Amino acid sequence: MSGIVVRKIERASPEVIEGLGACGVATVHEAQGRKGLLAAYMRPIYPGARLAASAVTISAPPGDNWMVHVSIEVAQAGDILVLAPTSPCEDGYFGDLLATSCLSRGVKGLIIDAGVRDVRDLTQMQFPVWSKAVSAQGTVKETLGSVNVPIVCANALVNPGDVIIADDDGVCVVRREEAADVLAKAQKREAAEESKRKRLAAGELGLDLYDMRDRLAERGLKYV
Amino acid sequence: MSGIVVRKIERASPEVIEGLGACGVATVHEAQGRKGLLAAYMRPIYPGARLAASAVTISAPPGDNWMVHVSIEVAQAGDILVLAPTSPCEDGYFGDLLATSCLSRGVKGLIIDAGVRDVRDLTQMQFPVWSKAVSAQGTVKETLGSVNVPIVCANALVNPGDVIIADDDGVCVVRREEAADVLAKAQKREAAEESKRKRLAAGELGLDLYDMRDRLAERGLKYV
Amino acid sequence: MSGIVVRKIERASPEVIEGLGACGVATVHEAQGRKGLLAAYMRPIYPGARLAASAVTISAPPGDNWMVHVSIEVAQAGDILVLAPTSPCEDGYFGDLLATSCLSRGVKGLIIDAGVRDVRDLTQMQFPVWSKAVSAQGTVKETLGSVNVPIVCANALVNPGDVIIADDDGVCVVRREEAADVLAKAQKREAAEESKRKRLAAGELGLDLYDMRDRLAERGLKYV
Amino acid sequence: MSGIVVRKIERASPEVIEGLGACGVATVHEAQGRKGLLAAYMRPIYPGARLAASAVTISAPPGDNWMVHVSIEVAQAGDILVLAPTSPCEDGYFGDLLATSCLSRGVKGLIIDAGVRDVRDLTQMQFPVWSKAVSAQGTVKETLGSVNVPIVCANALVNPGDVIIADDDGVCVVRREEAADVLAKAQKREAAEESKRKRLAAGELGLDLYDMRDRLAERGLKYV
Amino acid sequence: MSGIVVRKIERASPEVIEGLGACGVATVHEAQGRKGLLAAYMRPIYPGARLAASAVTISAPPGDNWMVHVSIEVAQAGDILVLAPTSPCEDGYFGDLLATSCLSRGVKGLIIDAGVRDVRDLTQMQFPVWSKAVSAQGTVKETLGSVNVPIVCANALVNPGDVIIADDDGVCVVRREEAADVLAKAQKREAAEESKRKRLAAGELGLDLYDMRDRLAERGLKYV
Amino acid sequence: MSGIVVRKIERASPEVIEGLGACGVATVHEAQGRKGLLAAYMRPIYPGARLAASAVTISAPPGDNWMVHVSIEVAQAGDILVLAPTSPCEDGYFGDLLATSCLSRGVKGLIIDAGVRDVRDLTQMQFPVWSKAVSAQGTVKETLGSVNVPIVCANALVNPGDVIIADDDGVCVVRREEAADVLAKAQKREAAEESKRKRLAAGELGLDLYDMRDRLAERGLKYV
Repeated sequence: MSGIVVRKIERASPEVIEGLGACGVATVHEAQGRKGLLAAYMRPIYPGARLAASAVTISAPPGDNWMVHVSIEVAQAGDILVLAPTSPCEDGYFGDLLATSCLSRGVKGLIIDAGVRDVRDLTQMQFPVWSKAVSAQGTVKETLGSVNVPIVCANALVNPGDVIIADDDGVCVVRREEAADVLAKAQKREAAEESKRKRLAAGELGLDLYDMRDRLAERGLKYV
Repeated sequence: MSGIVVRKIERASPEVIEGLGACGVATVHEAQGRKGLLAAYMRPIYPGARLAASAVTISAPPGDNWMVHVSIEVAQAGDILVLAPTSPCEDGYFGDLLATSCLSRGVKGLIIDAGVRDVRDLTQMQFPVWSKAVSAQGTVKETLGSVNVPIVCANALVNPGDVIIADDDGVCVVRREEAADVLAKAQKREAAEESKRKRLAAGELGLDLYDMRDRLAERGLKYV
Repeated sequence: MSGIVVRKIERASPEVIEGLGACGVATVHEAQGRKGLLAAYMRPIYPGARLAASAVTISAPPGDNWMVHVSIEVAQAGDILVLAPTSPCEDGYFGDLLATSCLSRGVKGLIIDAGVRDVRDLTQMQFPVWSKAVSAQGTVKETLGSVNVPIVCANALVNPGDVIIADDDGVCVVRREEAADVLAKAQKREAAEESKRKRLAAGELGLDLYDMRDRLAERGLKYV
Repeated sequence: MSGIVVRKIERASPEVIEGLGACGVATVHEAQGRKGLLAAYMRPIYPGARLAASAVTISAPPGDNWMVHVSIEVAQAGDILVLAPTSPCEDGYFGDLLATSCLSRGVKGLIIDAGVRDVRDLTQMQFPVWSKAVSAQGTVKETLGSVNVPIVCANALVNPGDVIIADDDGVCVVRREEAADVLAKAQKREAAEESKRKRLAAGELGLDLYDMRDRLAERGLKYV
Repeated sequence: MSGIVVRKIERASPEVIEGLGACGVATVHEAQGRKGLLAAYMRPIYPGARLAASAVTISAPPGDNWMVHVSIEVAQAGDILVLAPTSPCEDGYFGDLLATSCLSRGVKGLIIDAGVRDVRDLTQMQFPVWSKAVSAQGTVKETLGSVNVPIVCANALVNPGDVIIADDDGVCVVRREEAADVLAKAQKREAAEESKRKRLAAGELGLDLYDMRDRLAERGLKYV
Repeated sequence: MSGIVVRKIERASPEVIEGLGACGVATVHEAQGRKGLLAAYMRPIYPGARLAASAVTISAPPGDNWMVHVSIEVAQAGDILVLAPTSPCEDGYFGDLLATSCLSRGVKGLIIDAGVRDVRDLTQMQFPVWSKAVSAQGTVKETLGSVNVPIVCANALVNPGDVIIADDDGVCVVRREEAADVLAKAQKREAAEESKRKRLAAGELGLDLYDMRDRLAERGLKYV
């Protein structure tokens, strides 16, 4: 099953990707029916990073980053690498040399259900990474994995070409085929939130804004 | 047992609360005999936040933030929301809309033994949160919980109206009835620490400052 | 076995220590054959800290920081304290008073497989700490441990006088006897990386730079 | 706050305690409104143990089991020891000698949010323990704690004299004052379950038995 | 996306399912190229259980087991329920009443990335469950999920009708379409293992049996 | 540093090893001053196993069990394999074929800070294993490690030839050079415990047996 590299993948349109990135993880996740979130242990290596990009997926053996090198060749400008190890691993698969290579080819970031290193350099380069761990532990190049096959990364299915949205709240994946539709819903949601934000800022209670009082009473809420 | 909202709670005096906040978590915790600390996994969403406030407690079902809306109505300016789920959960119960609502009513922050989202926005708003997790995972509004009942939050008992002290070291709860007494002890402690700090800064050893040498020898410490 | 303090330890030369610090954890770890890394849960209390120093080791009972006071007397300017509890513990063994004492005597930082507190103060003082936890939980002074004996800290063996390298990637220990040799290898590695960095920045692929294509094909990698 | 031993505590009646034990943890937990459950990491050291007893509570420093000895004197036949460390600890506070002492005085078991050892012996003696960990790590007798004060054990509040129910599903605490009422509810629940069990065993679906179809349709469930 | 129940799913042939079960998890996992394994935290509630069956999948909200009731109606004799919560949860979704219902309809077991309760009863009924946790914490029936949609369970993708193999080593999923092919490979593997087992039992070394000596020498292994 | 196999190691005498095994982990750990315990997450795959043996150490890359094959050749009858991965890994390095090979050569068991598989078979063969995890995840044979070099396994230093004691309480390592001395202390401890056990069984309190009352009073314990 491993040892396969798919060179050509479909991607969502740049406008859709950009639009989803502007909405952010929490909004996109809600807009697509609360699915696609990666596990909450996936954290950014520095605060404030935000990103939306097309996934180039990597399935890699534990402690072996050979396929990362392979993936960079098939990635395009605007893509993001998404790596899942074939068994749990926290080694540092990726550091400043690979980030340099990514940047030179327009790859925008990395999502890795494992470890990353050289985080000080990556922070200075502003190369965003969401990872399970930070670890200086290096890796070998001995065993094949695959590139651009479907993977399960941090408990979420990611297909090559799916849209990845990542920010301080975590990481969310949107199916490529659903991306335009999700964007429409997310933008609608954002507009609605804006008006709510104003009313809440003015002191209106959520209980009234969302019309909750009757339903709470009906369920039996008692004030004492 | 759930489905209860207590509207009116006792609070400590603003001076006492403010005083405890100035002492900080580590000092207050020592001053009250090393009790009341919440579990160390409760971390601030941004560094540097400091806070002391009266607890409005929330007992909420897993993945259901209905009671947060209810709590904001019964909270007063100067309070802090303290939420414990009825079973372990890392969902994002709270985001920027709820924070907007809190701020408009003077609620100063959130302690949550679960997840929070929109952390970039919350950071920009400087709305401090100490949480178990950051997660974009949303919640529903289907099942009742309670507000202003005693809860166990991150392995500590919190009664409504207890004083919450939180900073980069974590979160500590002080019983309302003991708050004034604890403040006195904490301030005494601070004064003592100040003189110790000067002597240590001047190069005096803790071994001498605290008069430890005899007791160490008596216990059998051997220098080789 | 406990209750022993070794006053006099061997140290690596200041030039070697400084040189290793300039290389950083990831490079040093690679240079010495991927050994000596402490567990990845050891994290700095603030980003950007970097340090190389000679280890003064502390074996301490759970929840008891008596030996920290003892260790400061036997430490020299340029040393770093390295503490391992005799059983897992996350209490805050160390705070701003001890840091003040350390600074006054030239001790440069702390590696602790347990908790630390007063992290806001330590950050302001720029006293670097790598720890397993942040916790306001205080400790007692009742039971002896040892100072400057070999310890296992965060799954790595640390002898007194070994060189500790620590930065945002974590913590690595280098045997004192091997330090000069490891430095030579690390510096060689750095030089080689610099030329690679330039070529990668210019768009050359790792596949070509490292001559991987034949070996990948031989292992059976298939492009589809 | 520590250093206190309360000799005399109130207990629930033996009939109520026995009745609750016969219902088991899951039923009692439901019957009292889904509260009082200790964290799920509390596991029995051998399968099949079941127990109901009055809590003698112990607040103990990390790695210090002195208070266990103190507690045995104030315990009565039919009690169970419930120990919470003042900070997280997995040391083995309790082994076969303490179990021998407990058995000789009629103490029925141990709930410990820490470690236990000699589990082979305890299993042979059929002395039931629910613990966070198994660890051979011994403890010291240097620092006071308290006996029969309210404690938070594995995220649940336990008062001295509360009823502890424990079996393969975990551990639940019932307030002493509510015990008789909870027993009545639990027994009612058991009776109802018995008839449901028969109908389900006969092939009737829960959808029909609990009359769920209309409500599911109303919420929008779609069969495709 | 939620609120969907797919009544009719494809299944692998009973012979293939049975054959895979006879091979066991470790062999099947190897035979299909080391893929499909669920996370290692999925453990059986009692030792010795073994099972192969067609997956009926359940996507359920945290702390809400309504969809389990829905799933039992659409399951057939010989199926196994596979439940993934939409966010991490350890509540006890399933107990002896649901197991009774399952058994009456021929459902053979449960794989649940959450908690289970009544484990003593389930053990006596010999109803096998592989779960993330044991917890008496009950659930509600308020929010829809889905049945027989693709889910990610314990970091593995499971489609309805896929074959689940489970034993003391954990849980593995085999795609329905690949099941016959995987069975052939697994049986071939078993035959090969049998002859190896005999030679190893007779004292032959793996180094010789697998012809490793030359390759080890070539990689530079040194005996000293 | 890797790629080294030490063929010849020193071992403790069989009588000493056997004697330590008879004392068990908890007693041996106490007898040698509470050191040498492996982390508490190291658990036996079946209850009741007990073992003492000389360590043949293995340092292995993550997900690569090549060195296990190498180790079996250099092990002697009466040895135990002790494996530490060079970075955290839970893969199943060892299964029934390797156990068959071990048994045919008199190797008595396995201590592994990683995963094991075929646990049903291993249980039937009564081949004892203490591991961090059970996992069907297989491994490759691509990268060298070392055999019979000092390793840190589960936070404890293990030298080749050290004595390993393992039972239901966990795993303890005794330095080869200290083994005879530790045995003497452990046996003395056992004798003392026997008399204490009788007195405790007869109802004498630990408070009196260990003469604790005065020291408790002196520290300020108050009975109320």
